[in-house]
Amino acid sequence: MKRTSRDIRTANRYEVLRHVIAESPAVSRQHLASATGLSLATVATLVGELLHLGAITEVGYEDSDGGRPRGLVAVNAQGGALIGVDVAETYIHVEVFDLSLTVLARADEELRPERPGEREPRQVIARIAAAVRAVVEAAAIPDDRVLGVGVSMPGQVDREGGVSVFAPNWDWHDVPVLDLLAEHLPYPLHLDNPLRACTVAELWFGAARGREHAVVVNLGTGVGAGLALGGTLHRGASNSAGEWGHTTLVLDGRVCHCGAHGCVESYVGAPGIMQNLRELSPGSPLLHPDDQTATVEALGRALADGDPVAVKTVRDTARYLGAGLADLVNLLNPEVIVLSSWVAAGLGEPLLTEVRAAVAGRALRRPLASTEIVLSPIPTNPVSLGAATFALEGWLASTGRKSRTNTSTTAAAMIRSTPS
Amino acid sequence: MKRTSRDIRTANRYEVLRHVIAESPAVSRQHLASATGLSLATVATLVGELLHLGAITEVGYEDSDGGRPRGLVAVNAQGGALIGVDVAETYIHVEVFDLSLTVLARADEELRPERPGEREPRQVIARIAAAVRAVVEAAAIPDDRVLGVGVSMPGQVDREGGVSVFAPNWDWHDVPVLDLLAEHLPYPLHLDNPLRACTVAELWFGAARGREHAVVVNLGTGVGAGLALGGTLHRGASNSAGEWGHTTLVLDGRVCHCGAHGCVESYVGAPGIMQNLRELSPGSPLLHPDDQTATVEALGRALADGDPVAVKTVRDTARYLGAGLADLVNLLNPEVIVLSSWVAAGLGEPLLTEVRAAVAGRALRRPLASTEIVLSPIPTNPVSLGAATFALEGWLASTGRKSRTNTSTTAAAMIRSTPS
Repeated sequence: MKRTSRDIRTANRYEVLRHVIAESPAVSRQHLASATGLSLATVATLVGELLHLGAITEVGYEDSDGGRPRGLVAVNAQGGALIGVDVAETYIHVEVFDLSLTVLARADEELRPERPGEREPRQVIARIAAAVRAVVEAAAIPDDRVLGVGVSMPGQVDREGGVSVFAPNWDWHDVPVLDLLAEHLPYPLHLDNPLRACTVAELWFGAARGREHAVVVNLGTGVGAGLALGGTLHRGASNSAGEWGHTTLVLDGRVCHCGAHGCVESYVGAPGIMQNLRELSPGSPLLHPDDQTATVEALGRALADGDPVAVKTVRDTARYLGAGLADLVNLLNPEVIVLSSWVAAGLGEPLLTEVRAAVAGRALRRPLASTEIVLSPIPTNPVSLGAATFALEGWLASTGRKSRTNTSTTAAAMIRSTPS
Repeated sequence: MKRTSRDIRTANRYEVLRHVIAESPAVSRQHLASATGLSLATVATLVGELLHLGAITEVGYEDSDGGRPRGLVAVNAQGGALIGVDVAETYIHVEVFDLSLTVLARADEELRPERPGEREPRQVIARIAAAVRAVVEAAAIPDDRVLGVGVSMPGQVDREGGVSVFAPNWDWHDVPVLDLLAEHLPYPLHLDNPLRACTVAELWFGAARGREHAVVVNLGTGVGAGLALGGTLHRGASNSAGEWGHTTLVLDGRVCHCGAHGCVESYVGAPGIMQNLRELSPGSPLLHPDDQTATVEALGRALADGDPVAVKTVRDTARYLGAGLADLVNLLNPEVIVLSSWVAAGLGEPLLTEVRAAVAGRALRRPLASTEIVLSPIPTNPVSLGAATFALEGWLASTGRKSRTNTSTTAAAMIRSTPS
């Protein structure tokens, strides 16, 4: 309800840094003011704060048509390191980034949830910690320069408490992920789920940047819709907004693993797409039973060859997906809908073309006129990028406040005293 | 994107006045600070602005346990008049309110859209103007004390331009409602639609007050969902968010008047409920063909008597409505869903009970746990109340700015010089 001036200042700090990162290699305060719509005085204050934090650095002057030369700033890539962790059912993927969000090192751990013990919380947490230590070592980052670690865990997450409330793939209930992880790692820690990680990645670096209202639709095994409304992530009352995959598309339709019938996810998630293919052509060689990835890859390749079964499968899927996206257009009236995650990447432009036509056939004229539908432009893993962005946001927001592990202020202080 | 400090100040001014109105008869700055979460200094500034505007007034002191007595403020009911206009297909309903949002006078005009000429824009606009003049006269309000008129028109509305983009009931396209109305009325004018009017009424005076995230579901001939997210109305990219009535519930289901199939509205709008009744009992005496109001009233009365056909019709309707509301719970994770408008009022508690059960059977556990579903507590016409609230918001936001007709500042100045 009551948005404080502190919230505004934090949001504006994000906004200015976003623009500095985007306007590489260097940008003036004047340009930042016109790009953000903030006053020059406000931008000057925010730039001062970011300089003080060590997030950006002065890099010289530009000519300004005979006037006083304008100071230029750029992101201080060496100002610290951010770590993004994408925990999925069968793997842990970790990336370490510099402050320009360039990947410095990666590490992967395989999880075998079918083996006894390998889905146990302490076991999974130890593997996450090991992977984080591996990237920090690989990139040769001193501990005091790690500004934070963002962890994305599938399922329902209590972000403030750092708790995995429910992870359906491992049947976890109320696991205190960050408390357990803090036993291994001395860094500020942040927890959320892949849907929100992808959405924040699009807000900072992707197709939602600069948009007032955007929806990031995650198409993977599960599906969801991250809502970026009014320029910020809409989390809802208990950080569980975005469960578009479990909205009804076909009353009394296919049984969904959530227990309900006819959910969007059961038609357009990877297993749903396999079902669409199976209903069309039960013996299709494109169908790899028990292997979603291989099936989607086979569909993608067959589409490129104009294979009629693949084309029809994608058209059927787009009919379902288009109806579900038209719901988002009509209800939320966003400027952009971004299709993200591996199924969207795997079926690419052919899916996009069919989906745009299906949405146009169903959505109301006025909201439709203001909505673009695009594929995510983020070339790397959006989940680890988004998780690292949570760490970046946490660091930017924490100035002057005590952070979870109390090391971020120290790290910032260290960085300020380190010559760059 | 860039929320300015001016936006914040306006939002905080709304918030303080909302509390002053709610905490009738009188409230201290200290209490306002603790109720809003704002600092005492900020509250003191905002109270000063509201006093200067004439929206509130000093009304004495309260004891504070031996300390300095605390000044009390109250809404200045006589500080000006607000007018709310509810334009529907077949009627115009106008109410004039004092600043405590108490109704001072009402006027009604019947519209007969089937008669040639009576759906013509100039004809309808002239009827609206006549009804507004009637209430101003009935309440004996001098012109210069009318702070604004809010008009709710069905359909799609360009709020900034004051244009009815599309009114399906009269087949209006791009009618410049406020420009036409300004030829008749010398007051600041504001335009929006009934869905958003009801939502703002709930935000200020109803079940959404003090809630961070609320959804106001309008159940009438048409249906929609007003979204109050982050404490403010979510309008979307082109002020057309909330078209929940045209989200898909049954893929390839009933034909909807929007041209699509299986929309929520075609199952739970008044004509949809009549169809549910018809499918259950084609010859039922409860069914008044061509009269939605009479049918819903008959259903309401029969429910009170435990009539099995009425009970089953409401249960069938609640199954559809519950699935549609579960979609809102899963997607938006609101704190409260408010059922508003005449169908909700007509079927009342029996509908609410069935709907709660249906939602509980479909929504995901975590978002469901934080969502209440309630009937609107607003005892009067929420559309004219909400329309008047748009006028109130416009007046509060316009301080120091030129308003549409430039009379609001004058009116405020007059009011300040008027002894109360």
